[in-house]
Amino acid sequence: MRVKSDLTPARGTRDLLPPAVAIRDHVLARITEVYRGFGYQRIETPALENIERLRGGQGGENQKLIYEVLRRGLEPTVAADTPLADLVDLGLRFDLTVPLTRFYGANRASLPQPFRSFQFGPVWRAERPARGRYRQFYQCDIDILGEQSALAEVELLEATTAALAAAGIEGTTVRVSDRRFLSALAAHSGAAAESWDRLFITLDKLDKIGWDGVRAELAERVGLDRQVIDTIAETITGLQGTDPAKLPDQLANTLPGVEEAVLTDLATVAAGLPGVNWEFDPTLVRGMGYYTGQIFEVTHPASGGSVAGGGRYDKLVGRFLGTDVPACGFSIGFERIVDLLATAPGTEAVAVLFESDTPMTTVLAVARTLRESGRSVSPVRRSGKFGAQLGRLEEWGYTSFVHLRADTEGVGEERRLGDKGR
Amino acid sequence: MRVKSDLTPARGTRDLLPPAVAIRDHVLARITEVYRGFGYQRIETPALENIERLRGGQGGENQKLIYEVLRRGLEPTVAADTPLADLVDLGLRFDLTVPLTRFYGANRASLPQPFRSFQFGPVWRAERPARGRYRQFYQCDIDILGEQSALAEVELLEATTAALAAAGIEGTTVRVSDRRFLSALAAHSGAAAESWDRLFITLDKLDKIGWDGVRAELAERVGLDRQVIDTIAETITGLQGTDPAKLPDQLANTLPGVEEAVLTDLATVAAGLPGVNWEFDPTLVRGMGYYTGQIFEVTHPASGGSVAGGGRYDKLVGRFLGTDVPACGFSIGFERIVDLLATAPGTEAVAVLFESDTPMTTVLAVARTLRESGRSVSPVRRSGKFGAQLGRLEEWGYTSFVHLRADTEGVGEERRLGDKGR
Repeated sequence: MRVKSDLTPARGTRDLLPPAVAIRDHVLARITEVYRGFGYQRIETPALENIERLRGGQGGENQKLIYEVLRRGLEPTVAADTPLADLVDLGLRFDLTVPLTRFYGANRASLPQPFRSFQFGPVWRAERPARGRYRQFYQCDIDILGEQSALAEVELLEATTAALAAAGIEGTTVRVSDRRFLSALAAHSGAAAESWDRLFITLDKLDKIGWDGVRAELAERVGLDRQVIDTIAETITGLQGTDPAKLPDQLANTLPGVEEAVLTDLATVAAGLPGVNWEFDPTLVRGMGYYTGQIFEVTHPASGGSVAGGGRYDKLVGRFLGTDVPACGFSIGFERIVDLLATAPGTEAVAVLFESDTPMTTVLAVARTLRESGRSVSPVRRSGKFGAQLGRLEEWGYTSFVHLRADTEGVGEERRLGDKGR
Repeated sequence: MRVKSDLTPARGTRDLLPPAVAIRDHVLARITEVYRGFGYQRIETPALENIERLRGGQGGENQKLIYEVLRRGLEPTVAADTPLADLVDLGLRFDLTVPLTRFYGANRASLPQPFRSFQFGPVWRAERPARGRYRQFYQCDIDILGEQSALAEVELLEATTAALAAAGIEGTTVRVSDRRFLSALAAHSGAAAESWDRLFITLDKLDKIGWDGVRAELAERVGLDRQVIDTIAETITGLQGTDPAKLPDQLANTLPGVEEAVLTDLATVAAGLPGVNWEFDPTLVRGMGYYTGQIFEVTHPASGGSVAGGGRYDKLVGRFLGTDVPACGFSIGFERIVDLLATAPGTEAVAVLFESDTPMTTVLAVARTLRESGRSVSPVRRSGKFGAQLGRLEEWGYTSFVHLRADTEGVGEERRLGDKGR
């Protein structure tokens, strides 16, 4: 029975062909090497998690995008008025942070303290498909669990920028802010506490809609008074572009209510990152509600959005574990990075062209001999016009070939592909 | 809000801790290196496939074990008499072969001919959980699509045994049979064609239930006559342990109806695999119904079951594409192999122990300096009794440490862990 059918991947997902996988493997290998040097250890959690955990309230908008998995062993017909939720017990993870908090809680006794986690794996979100946005994509996260000081922040920033550089993304800028600074700013402005979340979401749009847009939204949608908005705008404008060395003093003067820890953590970052290009960005917010301290984004001139981001989330593990565990993490935008890199470093690949009367044992023996050089070597049957076939071999990534006729002795003459006229 | 909750992974799945991941990464790296040398190119397909494709009829028993994914955007309450199937549009792949056939059909124009595919990735089966059996596990497949001769079989066998050896699994034996041999055997015995599938399934159990068990099952459950069973048993016994060089002649004499291609393909394998320990096993069947030619299993003394298996399946791609494409594949039992290997090669890991009054800039600078040696280096806060902490560091995989006090100059003295008395 032939079932000729639609061959495209499931909606919003994609196949990765060898050249794309080669770039991804190259980038991952460079990142992995750097992270290993910093002591991060790779872990893996299952793609499926219990649905209650995924719906547990930390995932924000992403919780609406969960792929839900049907319970096994259900009756083939659903009874009347069955709530859809009763049919579901599992879901595909939408990020690597929710699984990490569960993993840490379950395995803490077997893990080093502090634990430096490295995760690389697919996540799934049923988003509206769009150019460059896929429903299955990879995340690449490092996290330090169990270190309360800003040493964690500095180390994550150093490791992430080094990993990006190793992957070929140099010339990045790190934008730093602090959730506690934002709270102090909001308090200083006189905005009511219940408006803070919306205030921060609006501030985060400054890049896109400018001060006029932010002011309008703060007035109309957040409902803040003119005076409150003026204070916010003046404070932020006054802090932008401050020399990192003078930042703690200036912050303390501008916002007398700011926590001392905000200042010392910024001083630690300033002192600890001599080689990293960073700046304090008072408008940086980041979407997830679970951040509790410093927050970061890494930008690159060639990318519209950020290429990495992260921050401290000291309360998240405690939600599951019952005990707070200090935690800080950084996620590299893996898909965005591989999009910035056009090709992987070339590898040598030799085609062993054989005719239908070339003895098989000759083909195999020649391939074996050539393989001893450490190169990729594979037999290919001669077919069609010779020149056209050489063109195809080159297109497919072969860099040289040998042509074995029935009477070829030894390994034959190896010739480069693409070196026309030689 | 604290939601102290069950921290175990979803039923039948597991977390992979750093030592387990290190073994897996090591094995995968060795296998990848060998496969790359043979010209296999890694591809990736999405974990989710359209449910019709997964149910499309090639997956045998595995189709009953599919994790089914709910359509998005359904009403929160299901209407009366809704067939469960109407609620589902996607499923998680249960193997890498079904996605490969779709991938090849969709992307054939961009792929080398023949195409040597290498896949490594998780698959999901909702099996009854048991010791060593997980609902998410990794498969590691190579396939050659577009090569009709037994060159493909020989190359796959050579690459697979080389990859296993590189991963540390040496001393393997390859068992070879051929679906066309089995058909000739069944025809020769006089068994009715409609009983063949059940006949083969019973034969496959010879290892476990012996000839008495097989004879009983062939008589009682398959319904074969005594004389038919005798012919089958005598033919098989007569072929077991045949010298590979004499096998084609003996097969032709024993089963005059056997296809010529069975003999030439066996001769090709015999001539093409000088370094591989292989034997013809007339009782080898393999479960999947899609095989059309030679079939293989690789066994190892330390493993109860096979550590790899595969065969030719010339009709499977054609079911989707409308044109037959010769295909042959080999799957390494990745999970079984990593279970056979206790540890990964050790790596050097240095702990930079610091006190609460050690300047952070010192900690970071020392870590940076030590990292220049290419080792894994990470700061760890001093806590508890010194000797106990050193014990924990060793347990966590650290191989040496430096201890930075507030007044330590330079990188301090590096000391090995576990070298007691030195």
